[in-house]
Amino acid sequence: MGLSKDAKSFTKITLDESEMPTQWYNIIPDLPSPPPPPLHPGTHQPVGPADLAPLFPMDLILQEVSTDSYIDIPGEVLDVYRTWRPSPLFRARRLEKLLDTPARLYYKYEGVSPAGSHKTNTSVPQAYYNKKAGIKKITTETGAGQWGTALAFACALFDMECEVWQVGGSYDAKPYRRLMMEVFGAKVHRSPSQLTEAGRKLSLDPKNKSGSLGIAISEAVEAAVTDPTVAYALGSVLNHVLMHQTIIGEEALKQLAKVGETPDLLVGCTGGGSNFAGLSFPFIREKLKGKMNPEIRAVEPASCPSLTRGKYAYDFGDTAGMTPLMKMHTLGHDFIPDPIHAGGLRYHGMAPLISHIYELGMMTAQSVGQKECFAAAMQFARTEGIVPAPEPTHAIAVAIAEALKAKETGEEKVILTALCGHGHFDLAAYDAFLNGNMVDSVLNDKDFEAALAALPVM
Amino acid sequence: MGLSKDAKSFTKITLDESEMPTQWYNIIPDLPSPPPPPLHPGTHQPVGPADLAPLFPMDLILQEVSTDSYIDIPGEVLDVYRTWRPSPLFRARRLEKLLDTPARLYYKYEGVSPAGSHKTNTSVPQAYYNKKAGIKKITTETGAGQWGTALAFACALFDMECEVWQVGGSYDAKPYRRLMMEVFGAKVHRSPSQLTEAGRKLSLDPKNKSGSLGIAISEAVEAAVTDPTVAYALGSVLNHVLMHQTIIGEEALKQLAKVGETPDLLVGCTGGGSNFAGLSFPFIREKLKGKMNPEIRAVEPASCPSLTRGKYAYDFGDTAGMTPLMKMHTLGHDFIPDPIHAGGLRYHGMAPLISHIYELGMMTAQSVGQKECFAAAMQFARTEGIVPAPEPTHAIAVAIAEALKAKETGEEKVILTALCGHGHFDLAAYDAFLNGNMVDSVLNDKDFEAALAALPVM
Repeated sequence: MGLSKDAKSFTKITLDESEMPTQWYNIIPDLPSPPPPPLHPGTHQPVGPADLAPLFPMDLILQEVSTDSYIDIPGEVLDVYRTWRPSPLFRARRLEKLLDTPARLYYKYEGVSPAGSHKTNTSVPQAYYNKKAGIKKITTETGAGQWGTALAFACALFDMECEVWQVGGSYDAKPYRRLMMEVFGAKVHRSPSQLTEAGRKLSLDPKNKSGSLGIAISEAVEAAVTDPTVAYALGSVLNHVLMHQTIIGEEALKQLAKVGETPDLLVGCTGGGSNFAGLSFPFIREKLKGKMNPEIRAVEPASCPSLTRGKYAYDFGDTAGMTPLMKMHTLGHDFIPDPIHAGGLRYHGMAPLISHIYELGMMTAQSVGQKECFAAAMQFARTEGIVPAPEPTHAIAVAIAEALKAKETGEEKVILTALCGHGHFDLAAYDAFLNGNMVDSVLNDKDFEAALAALPVM
Repeated sequence: MGLSKDAKSFTKITLDESEMPTQWYNIIPDLPSPPPPPLHPGTHQPVGPADLAPLFPMDLILQEVSTDSYIDIPGEVLDVYRTWRPSPLFRARRLEKLLDTPARLYYKYEGVSPAGSHKTNTSVPQAYYNKKAGIKKITTETGAGQWGTALAFACALFDMECEVWQVGGSYDAKPYRRLMMEVFGAKVHRSPSQLTEAGRKLSLDPKNKSGSLGIAISEAVEAAVTDPTVAYALGSVLNHVLMHQTIIGEEALKQLAKVGETPDLLVGCTGGGSNFAGLSFPFIREKLKGKMNPEIRAVEPASCPSLTRGKYAYDFGDTAGMTPLMKMHTLGHDFIPDPIHAGGLRYHGMAPLISHIYELGMMTAQSVGQKECFAAAMQFARTEGIVPAPEPTHAIAVAIAEALKAKETGEEKVILTALCGHGHFDLAAYDAFLNGNMVDSVLNDKDFEAALAALPVM
């Protein structure tokens, strides 16, 4: 499995700007079967490009249904990517030492982007294609605030308006996230809001008080469909969003090759799935080619375990039922996850493409409670010096657990994980952990059964 | 004047890890005369290494008085530096476009460090040398929180305790800063505190309620002197601290050379002076060698203008009068600057070495109000995508003003500035600006006169 532990003394593996990938990777043509298509909620027929036109510009719709393996990244997008890309790959030497493990831990760090997470990899092209199509304003939802910040940043650069519905619990807990979006010029609303029909209706039910990604999506979609100069943008779940993130994995492949390593385990956190897909899809391609054989593992919160406990069924992407039906692992579109700190993972469904790959048996999944995640994050922060966002602490917790298993077995396991963002706006969560005020939220069976019962009948 | 505007299409200029400087630069031997020595407050005789031994390890004391032009950076420090260094140099192309200026704006970005600012350049070697000397705990002060975070990070890495006195106004306004230090394992107190004699005494005067760097220094020094296993660390002002920061300018020199540019103007913000010195000292060396001829300009807040309005005199570095007397531009050691948002610039004095260079006529200085700074920061954030800390907005404001002057004259002026940290923990300041609640604090003449009157009689 690659180099012996001490053959090289690198910590940070960088790429030259000239080595930055210039194409996104579309995994669909390489899969043994294509994912089931999204369906029109009324006719239950596959949706075509025309059905999506009120929401998205045609360039993105064509990417959504593309059968090309690679799509060129436009020069205008590459110019912006170069602000922070190629992102560094680190070997976690100080964490390895603390754990006293023979495993070699690598993390690809996306927190170097101006918005602080991987989300800019897709917000920039989405803003670019919308601008090109004559769109003046983009609406969106945001959970933890990473996506909203990334879209606000991209809209500022392309001189467009941006309007964000932020999940209520996150809006209340993270005022700095809202402020950062406002610095970039975005208008931010607490969701559920009184500005949309969906928001007004859903806010009548007390269980929706802290909001959810599903509700915020309903609001942002509603605000976009009525005006042809306004479009909607989604920060995860859809094929084109996942594809934009593959630059993460493409870079990581080159970086590991530079130091002669091949991974035994890839581990990433999953909410909607874009960060996980971005890291793993290029490695799945290499695996399909027989060039390496890593286990590909998704980690999700115990309170919102769509892959490990959800049903693989057609469901809406939003709570109000305005989106096409997508076949995915879902907890039910009106399931409201507990307000855990990893707001970016509080989504009732999983990207249809990841759900399909999971069904094909090409990856594994597990869930973790948030206390274990933050305990791991503390070990990480005090050795590696980076304070992770709550979302990637899920992957870090599993990477550490695997490194400790390797200590038992003596295996020189090579583990690669994605540190998709920093936690500068999430320190209240660390405060709760340090002061013993964090609770381990788990899936409430009763709410879960009720939500599953509300799945659309097909 | 280097390359023509369109000869290259770079945005980010990076260095390979192998190009990272391995020595710090000591400017003192290159100056036409050495700076006046610090004096013992009782005897008014120059202090020797032995006088400083209760506070600092001998390695740092020897660096403080060194006459060598270059000092090797220890391998253990380089290992940590490599986590984020070499830091990127950006050309602000999008900001240039907004300003429609023929000037070419470059900024060296230190916010990529784990603690978010340039302060890690000195916190890491300071922690290292203390660890090597058998010290178990380091005490310090922090204003904006950047220095406290940087030292907490460095102490975590070298497995040492860290105790921080945070200026009261900053402690109250920036709870996330405190939390970040706690995540790194530091103990943080609001200053003035009841834990030290200096704190108890100074807190009796209502004008000291929001604290100051001078007061926090008194507290941290007092907490260190009584125990031989405890040392004190200062984040700016002293010669060795400024020297550790010269890696910024050394890298910037290499990066500009890569694209064939020589600067016409260097502009940096000054509080204690370490960020400014770090950027400018290597360029002053090149200027002395006749290799370039940039103007070197310091920018300070209108509310705390030590260089432009302070007296060049021997004064204490702290409010309680516990430090040696240093010849510097000072507003008086018991002057309490208004609680502006740039907490890192609220220091009554200026580094003796910078004060000396200023007296030698080798640099210029100006002061700016905070509203102008934040207006500039908004333009910067919405084009370059990085939200600056309040401190470097002072340099950005002047860089933008100079770029607009160049627009009038048509001059292709090359301007280099230091973006010494990000503003992720300073968004309350942006909130105040966006909502029209920011006031332009200026030096209060009456308090200033009173503070000058309290200068030690020599």
